Amino acid sequence: MATVVTLERPFNFEIGGYADHSTPLVKNCWYVAGTSSEISRDIISRRFLGVDVALYRTLDGRPAAVRNRCPHRSFPLAKGRLDGDILVCGYHGMQFDPSGRCAKMPSMPIVPTNANVRSFPIAERSPLVWIWMGDPDQADETLIPATPWLNSSEFKSVGGTFQLNSDYVSMHENLLDQTHFPFLHPGTVGTPEYARSKLDVRQEGDVIIIDRILKNSPPPGIYGVPTGLMGKPVDRLSEARFVSPGMHVAFAKIVDHEPEQGKPSTYRFNITHLITPETNGRIHYWWFNSRDSKLGDLEVDAFMVKASNQAYTEDVDALEWILQVVEKTQSHSLTSISRRTSRDS
Amino acid sequence: MATVVTLERPFNFEIGGYADHSTPLVKNCWYVAGTSSEISRDIISRRFLGVDVALYRTLDGRPAAVRNRCPHRSFPLAKGRLDGDILVCGYHGMQFDPSGRCAKMPSMPIVPTNANVRSFPIAERSPLVWIWMGDPDQADETLIPATPWLNSSEFKSVGGTFQLNSDYVSMHENLLDQTHFPFLHPGTVGTPEYARSKLDVRQEGDVIIIDRILKNSPPPGIYGVPTGLMGKPVDRLSEARFVSPGMHVAFAKIVDHEPEQGKPSTYRFNITHLITPETNGRIHYWWFNSRDSKLGDLEVDAFMVKASNQAYTEDVDALEWILQVVEKTQSHSLTSISRRTSRDS
Amino acid sequence: MATVVTLERPFNFEIGGYADHSTPLVKNCWYVAGTSSEISRDIISRRFLGVDVALYRTLDGRPAAVRNRCPHRSFPLAKGRLDGDILVCGYHGMQFDPSGRCAKMPSMPIVPTNANVRSFPIAERSPLVWIWMGDPDQADETLIPATPWLNSSEFKSVGGTFQLNSDYVSMHENLLDQTHFPFLHPGTVGTPEYARSKLDVRQEGDVIIIDRILKNSPPPGIYGVPTGLMGKPVDRLSEARFVSPGMHVAFAKIVDHEPEQGKPSTYRFNITHLITPETNGRIHYWWFNSRDSKLGDLEVDAFMVKASNQAYTEDVDALEWILQVVEKTQSHSLTSISRRTSRDS
Repeated sequence: MATVVTLERPFNFEIGGYADHSTPLVKNCWYVAGTSSEISRDIISRRFLGVDVALYRTLDGRPAAVRNRCPHRSFPLAKGRLDGDILVCGYHGMQFDPSGRCAKMPSMPIVPTNANVRSFPIAERSPLVWIWMGDPDQADETLIPATPWLNSSEFKSVGGTFQLNSDYVSMHENLLDQTHFPFLHPGTVGTPEYARSKLDVRQEGDVIIIDRILKNSPPPGIYGVPTGLMGKPVDRLSEARFVSPGMHVAFAKIVDHEPEQGKPSTYRFNITHLITPETNGRIHYWWFNSRDSKLGDLEVDAFMVKASNQAYTEDVDALEWILQVVEKTQSHSLTSISRRTSRDS
Repeated sequence: MATVVTLERPFNFEIGGYADHSTPLVKNCWYVAGTSSEISRDIISRRFLGVDVALYRTLDGRPAAVRNRCPHRSFPLAKGRLDGDILVCGYHGMQFDPSGRCAKMPSMPIVPTNANVRSFPIAERSPLVWIWMGDPDQADETLIPATPWLNSSEFKSVGGTFQLNSDYVSMHENLLDQTHFPFLHPGTVGTPEYARSKLDVRQEGDVIIIDRILKNSPPPGIYGVPTGLMGKPVDRLSEARFVSPGMHVAFAKIVDHEPEQGKPSTYRFNITHLITPETNGRIHYWWFNSRDSKLGDLEVDAFMVKASNQAYTEDVDALEWILQVVEKTQSHSLTSISRRTSRDS
Repeated sequence: MATVVTLERPFNFEIGGYADHSTPLVKNCWYVAGTSSEISRDIISRRFLGVDVALYRTLDGRPAAVRNRCPHRSFPLAKGRLDGDILVCGYHGMQFDPSGRCAKMPSMPIVPTNANVRSFPIAERSPLVWIWMGDPDQADETLIPATPWLNSSEFKSVGGTFQLNSDYVSMHENLLDQTHFPFLHPGTVGTPEYARSKLDVRQEGDVIIIDRILKNSPPPGIYGVPTGLMGKPVDRLSEARFVSPGMHVAFAKIVDHEPEQGKPSTYRFNITHLITPETNGRIHYWWFNSRDSKLGDLEVDAFMVKASNQAYTEDVDALEWILQVVEKTQSHSLTSISRRTSRDS
């Protein structure tokens, strides 16, 4: 069921070395354009893979995406207005349908046939809206990663969003290498034992999966508080899945071998990370934390939001600092000369 | 009487394609440096065609313009002070007369003969001060565009100024193509009928003129309110004149074929647009709206300022958005790779 | 005793022309990294010659300096924490000793032998801490410029610090060419007579020294107020010493040939300027003003701080304006065309 992407050939062979902030963006991939509630009848603009896109909904509620640049005089179409399903440019009133076809040019008696704006494949999988910035012929909607837990009555999800000055490669590295938990997130997801937990890497198609097991160890706050198991030794199983350049999912399981009466022995937390590059140095980031216990407990909701935002803010800060360090080094094209030194006599 | 400029050969032939934000700046042309009231005994600095200029008045009131950079240690001369007609650098006290000739170097017994600062031809045609940034030998003051309505007792003028991140080509396009009026300025100068009004393009020397006639149609607010003709069908004649890269003038005429007793049948509005590029991406912009009716009516003055500023702010916003769109596209030197996608089995 | 530096060959011969803001930074030189009180157990980061450095003290109080970039994932080490003398990276907990050697990698059973961070020679000469950014093998501590007056009971010193957008060459020029005093600092260190005072240039090893003598002239406020000699003609002797790219010292002497009873006939003021380039366009700057009179007078302390900060703020403003002027000119890669003009007939 997982969506898989295949590079024509291993990436490193093409450009040499490891992936980093200068690694090319991957266009033929579904990325999250926004949450369902972010896209409405009020046109918004967002930048995806270097391209500004105007996002809105048609009268029947379907999301639509066209390039945020009128082909006439480059006016940003998101500053225009909707007339039914027609997007009207705010400068000279040129009109476009959701496919990007020009429907009318007010100052001309005929409709120009080649003054169209590029549209993008877009599809809703509530609570997410996905966009395809690559070759439209390859935009197969069955490749959209499935996230059934975000819509299931068995789970309760909370979420949030960031825009950060980082690159998608560093973001994925951060999500895959959980040995940073005890150091960057000591107050939420990290415990001292976690850095040394057993780890196993495997591949399912093109999905890279890292399994970690930490047995008989008290859980960190983000799992301990909602389960009521703070301080109690439990088993913690984590399955971190690199699904595509646009998505990472972590399935965490807390197993209590001696549950109190009436309490479950297993608690599941599915953490969904959605990563959409604006450019090589800036990314949209949405996160969801879905749990299968205390579904109706609003205090647990509030705790999960607070603890998650604390941990992800720590990640965001770290990733932004790192890009600053890397960019400073690159920009330091300083000329300098060496000089012999001697002592005054 | 109109001032005319001649390109040696048609511009597009030289660099290919249409003019746009990267079109070279035209140096051999009179540009407005400021209004008469902006230039005083307090030295100010402004950037024209990429060059910083220090502007001030001599004791007898004549405007003076020299490069805002001391030839000695590059100190900005506008940060210095005036000693009579002598501009004294604020760093080492070097002195320059209004022609840019060094008059004294305090720490030297003799005056250096070749440490001069460049001066620029400058001339006042109240309420405007014009500067010539090109070859001084070609700075013929008779080429300064005439604006008699700004000084005539037959007209009352109001005006304002903007500095905007745009280019002079987009600004002129905006002024020449009035089909944007109903869409960008529905509340002030645009009416639905105007986009389809009859239009005629002609040339007088090097001045490009676009005539538009819209007959028997209610005027927009900016003409309807000061004439008291809101809602009444009138004829609207507009003559938009591209005078030079530094100036555009629009002569509008409202004709009321059935005037009330004692009211005029014709109302004239001369709109003067003065455009001075700072760089290819930033321009100084001054506007004046001159009318031949209700000359002493301060309420009409206030309305004209308010409505004009509303319309020109809409223009400024649009032009800045467009340059952002264009520059974003140019900077998006994003590397990206395509990738085949396949479904997981 | 003075420290001297020798260029392998005269600088101008290598790159042509005079030194300016684009002159290469000199790496093999001791620069001030901070004052003794700025460097503590709280890690700070500063940029020296284009390289970010993390600065801290070990448990026994010695200053330490390592590159502010973890060799693992480029996290800024100054955002980590100290565990005794060990610097712990805030991302994955990698540990480094003050020499930059990796002491531990928490998620690995063995310590990697080649994952070290660069450290820099650093030495304290209270109240200054000096760093060497060049070839470590040449970091001879005996080359650190001596500043005994900053530690002597015969002097009382006050000081301050700036970070400014300028280059070290312009800063040194400003300090060497005191003819700007009457124009840029009329309220503090400049008097009208000073621009024309006799001047003598000499060389001691590689130290360039400019002697100025102004006889029988009232002192400026910065010397007149603390000596109580405002308005009284005195001799003013100044020895401006270009010690190295990182340091300039001015020894000023005020001689009162007719001292009041019980008053000294000579007053000394040693002014220490410490200049550390961050880049070619930004510098750290520390100043100290040391006097040999009224050592315990707190009002004189306060006056010296106020007057010095006023004068050095004037210098800082001037130097920043100059770099802006220079950079604007360089960036003004504006294309422009000439055009013939003709008059309309």
